[in-house]
Amino acid sequence: MQPWKTLARTTVLERGKYLTVEDHTIELPDGRTIEQWPWLATPEFVNVAVVTADRELLCFRQTKYAVPGVSLAVVGGYLEPGEDPLSAAQRELLEETGYEADTWTALGRYAVDGNRGAGAAHLFIAQNARRVAEINADDLEEQELLLLSAQQARAALEAGEFKCLPWAAVMALALLRLGG
Amino acid sequence: MQPWKTLARTTVLERGKYLTVEDHTIELPDGRTIEQWPWLATPEFVNVAVVTADRELLCFRQTKYAVPGVSLAVVGGYLEPGEDPLSAAQRELLEETGYEADTWTALGRYAVDGNRGAGAAHLFIAQNARRVAEINADDLEEQELLLLSAQQARAALEAGEFKCLPWAAVMALALLRLGG
Repeated sequence: MQPWKTLARTTVLERGKYLTVEDHTIELPDGRTIEQWPWLATPEFVNVAVVTADRELLCFRQTKYAVPGVSLAVVGGYLEPGEDPLSAAQRELLEETGYEADTWTALGRYAVDGNRGAGAAHLFIAQNARRVAEINADDLEEQELLLLSAQQARAALEAGEFKCLPWAAVMALALLRLGG
Repeated sequence: MQPWKTLARTTVLERGKYLTVEDHTIELPDGRTIEQWPWLATPEFVNVAVVTADRELLCFRQTKYAVPGVSLAVVGGYLEPGEDPLSAAQRELLEETGYEADTWTALGRYAVDGNRGAGAAHLFIAQNARRVAEINADDLEEQELLLLSAQQARAALEAGEFKCLPWAAVMALALLRLGG
């Protein structure tokens, strides 16, 4: 199986550090070319399923602009320029919750949109987390910290209450790894 | 918790049915306003974890433009205009694999990007699937059908071999529900 080749790329829209839209000219393995294939360049980000020393899952209840109503959510955020994913995950955990964790496991890197990019999610599980500081978040959304047992987290996940794709993905991968 | 309000929206880029970029003017609950918040309008889509009558998982090996190398993948595709998610999932299963399934369970609707939209994923598990027809796919990518045991699928998932976020999400949710 051969990858598609990028023959040319043109920036068609810029919106600061969060979004650049490009048009790509692509060559398929059979020689056909496609013009104006839209490509979304957005920052990579992390999401973390956080398990406390008491084996509870540290989550949020919050609003998000693209999500109807209130959602359960997990720790996460964009990578700073040059930052590696694990450092970003550890920084976001401390900023958003005031917790630190002893044991970090990478759950993989995932393209958000297989066709158009739209960044990548780096997912982690952080275990044996403990509160060490006050919350110091700069997020625009209102959010409320909450602790769920693994059973509560699983029930909420299966009821669709983690309403964003990377949040549901990291919770499902983590609960699978923790033993269901 | 109050949602953000959309005060105005302007289309700034159109690329056929797959992408429209808008600028939104947003009012936060505390009265602040944000100008030029980029919003990605893209079609909603389905992904399906397919379990055959022999309790194997029906997957693909394939390339995707936004994914490095070859990835494991699942059945999926965009909703046609006016199509409901379950019908789209059943159509994609038949077109992409020639299979039909007896038992369908919705695993939820998930915003792809909590900040900027980028469509929504409707995830399903289809059980007791059987081959009834030839493959009739119109996808541009090369793809190869394969059957994995639940144990093989889980090992591949944990090794990060489902390299797109919605594919990993639906596999993890399905394997959790099937009993790990």
